[in-house]
Amino acid sequence: MIDPRVASGLRDLTPAQALRRERMLARFRDVFARYGYLPIETPHIERMEVLTGKGAGSEEVLRQIFEVTNKGGTPGELALRFDLTVPLARFVARHVEQLGTPFKRYAMGAVFRGERPAKGRFREFTQCDFDTVGSESVVADAETVQVVHDALAAIDAPAFTIHLNDRRILDGLLETLGISDRKAAVLRALDKLSKAGREAVASELGQATGAGLSAEAIGRVLEVAERGRGEPDEVLGRAGEWFGSSPTAAQGLSQLRRVVDLVAAGGVERARIRLDLGLARGLDYYTGIVLETTIDGLERMGSVASGGRYDNLASLFTSRRLPGVGASIGLDRLLAVLEEAGATPAADGTVPVLVTLFPGVEPEIALRLAARLRSAGIGAEVFPDPITVGKQLAYGSNRGHRLGVIVGPDERERQVFNLRDLTTRVERRGLAWEAVVSEVRAALDAGAVRP
Amino acid sequence: MIDPRVASGLRDLTPAQALRRERMLARFRDVFARYGYLPIETPHIERMEVLTGKGAGSEEVLRQIFEVTNKGGTPGELALRFDLTVPLARFVARHVEQLGTPFKRYAMGAVFRGERPAKGRFREFTQCDFDTVGSESVVADAETVQVVHDALAAIDAPAFTIHLNDRRILDGLLETLGISDRKAAVLRALDKLSKAGREAVASELGQATGAGLSAEAIGRVLEVAERGRGEPDEVLGRAGEWFGSSPTAAQGLSQLRRVVDLVAAGGVERARIRLDLGLARGLDYYTGIVLETTIDGLERMGSVASGGRYDNLASLFTSRRLPGVGASIGLDRLLAVLEEAGATPAADGTVPVLVTLFPGVEPEIALRLAARLRSAGIGAEVFPDPITVGKQLAYGSNRGHRLGVIVGPDERERQVFNLRDLTTRVERRGLAWEAVVSEVRAALDAGAVRP
Repeated sequence: MIDPRVASGLRDLTPAQALRRERMLARFRDVFARYGYLPIETPHIERMEVLTGKGAGSEEVLRQIFEVTNKGGTPGELALRFDLTVPLARFVARHVEQLGTPFKRYAMGAVFRGERPAKGRFREFTQCDFDTVGSESVVADAETVQVVHDALAAIDAPAFTIHLNDRRILDGLLETLGISDRKAAVLRALDKLSKAGREAVASELGQATGAGLSAEAIGRVLEVAERGRGEPDEVLGRAGEWFGSSPTAAQGLSQLRRVVDLVAAGGVERARIRLDLGLARGLDYYTGIVLETTIDGLERMGSVASGGRYDNLASLFTSRRLPGVGASIGLDRLLAVLEEAGATPAADGTVPVLVTLFPGVEPEIALRLAARLRSAGIGAEVFPDPITVGKQLAYGSNRGHRLGVIVGPDERERQVFNLRDLTTRVERRGLAWEAVVSEVRAALDAGAVRP
Repeated sequence: MIDPRVASGLRDLTPAQALRRERMLARFRDVFARYGYLPIETPHIERMEVLTGKGAGSEEVLRQIFEVTNKGGTPGELALRFDLTVPLARFVARHVEQLGTPFKRYAMGAVFRGERPAKGRFREFTQCDFDTVGSESVVADAETVQVVHDALAAIDAPAFTIHLNDRRILDGLLETLGISDRKAAVLRALDKLSKAGREAVASELGQATGAGLSAEAIGRVLEVAERGRGEPDEVLGRAGEWFGSSPTAAQGLSQLRRVVDLVAAGGVERARIRLDLGLARGLDYYTGIVLETTIDGLERMGSVASGGRYDNLASLFTSRRLPGVGASIGLDRLLAVLEEAGATPAADGTVPVLVTLFPGVEPEIALRLAARLRSAGIGAEVFPDPITVGKQLAYGSNRGHRLGVIVGPDERERQVFNLRDLTTRVERRGLAWEAVVSEVRAALDAGAVRP
């Protein structure tokens, strides 16, 4: 016998889990589509050099790549994608002439990383990405925030906060302080602020990893990161004095102001938007706005939707400059956070009606009644085996069917059926076969079989 | 620069292609769900021993396995799934105690085979599977046929035929002829009948691959295969004399008769069902009904939906006997056949409304109008850059938007907009912002902007 387990870091999803994901993906798809984003699909397998090209992924991600080989294939040639951004870059470079710009695409699919397995960390997980490529407009920035907002609203997520920054603000600060050359180390340290705390970050900025800042510079950086968080008007009000006359920071601040105004016009509630001027989002390729999204009270679980603006998406693959903006919703983390919040959406997945197969009664009758219900748009399952009807009804109760349709030998003679409420056990008897759709619909609309 | 191509045998899907697939998958999901099938998901990566266990896949399929390794992982331990049946078997063995039977599941996803790339052959393709596990009922057999029928009807496929057989009929024939020991070779040869023709199959049965049948046996086998095709009543009428008193064949024939009657009761048109008593479907694990589905006139392109009944799904993984029945729709082949038939479903994918961004007019207005439309369930895209409005409208025409919403400086002053039909170029001017939903809906309902 072979052990039916899955490999470490991988998962099976049972119907309840799979239904929940399916519904969330359907809602996201609706939101993306409503804004004019169009789907694309790229293969799970990419050529290795596409994934490992300079800047495609962080060193950490590259270490986690799954290589793919088949008999007769060349080792090292193929690998599984680790995100949907590199495939987007490749796709756009390849197809942009045909597709034109602005090009708005969404993609939802599995990505693979050989991470050390740990609670809530999976080696295969689902990302839901949307991007607008080929526009530098602040309208596209604002729309990215709107879509994150609408997507979370669409799944009835509990209260959440979208944290906004513009990378040029930190750039301007470092310029002002004369420490632009230590940008990477500073941003890396800052990204730890909410998790590691002030002390740890101050110490890292002061000594470690080559950042080596003066006490004054550390104080300024931390002031921006700490006092730069909060309600947009307040933060923008106090931020004016922090950046001297840096034109870079001024551009960033003015962009943030525009985004905040535009998303309000687009219907995003003010309370959902916060600025966080210390937010860096490690990845080097962001050049304008950046955003992260947390569920209120569960910030420690990290961002469920993140993204930003980049200057040049596909420079590995084409000389054509392709600026853009987009974000990615991490479905698995989102589900984990919702579960932690006790806000997992219900997944009463199965069809409402179970048509039983009475022992000794020909199954044609059950199939005919079920087919009528389905034609009328009412899902109906026929129990396949003519076991005791009580057992069939118990199966229905357990699976979440709401109504049982029963035709015994007497009912068969009279061409009628009994309709049983699987919750209350109320049963109406002797209903005409012709009335199956109207009777079932009435019971479903009423939420119960009325005696 | 890195070449942005995909590896041989893999594909990018542009929005038009991806939309088409997305819609077909949504329709299939609806049909599966309507019958009470529930979704499950299993990882794309399985443990190698799960995939290569005895009988899990044919030798050909096993040669095509993609191995997966990451840094620090053990070579030979992991691989990409090559179908959704082996993962189902593993899943059921692992979870059946919790889930109970009958267990009806569907799964739709990518599978991987390192086939030699050729036209219409891909190394990554999508299967849409549904199965009922834990029931031996003919009702479950019939339902499998119904679901294939309803799924193809749901995507408005052109006329198609579901070819049915029961494996016991051929088993009985071989028993009668005393050649059961050469079953594998005979079935292999018979599966080629529609493609290779009578001569080739007769010769293979006579000489090659160890089948070595007598001329009489060859004649009997070919008679069943050839005269056993057609309208169910006719085939069943003439088949009685072909199998002597074989009880095995009699069981098979009687099962086919029941399935034919039941699917008719379930609403399947008679014209869609044909018997094909020579249909074997190579795979060893089928033990009862088998089915294939072809688009009429394009039979040469092969089956688009195939399946059958098996005695014991998960014997590699559990001692619990799990009989079942199910089928798989091959999405990629189906799309290829539909394309060949000129029946590719339209994919006018984008939202109906393009809200333009007039140069010099604040984008808040566009975002507000678009948000109102979306709240009313009408998809609306805002063009992100304030370029010449003519260019924006041309983008809309090209992408398939039907209506343009335009607010220039004059309209802004008067709080009105112009609504332009991007097909006819008819434009209604001076409509109140408050009326944007009703005006747009009226134009969409009417199919045009009326002057």
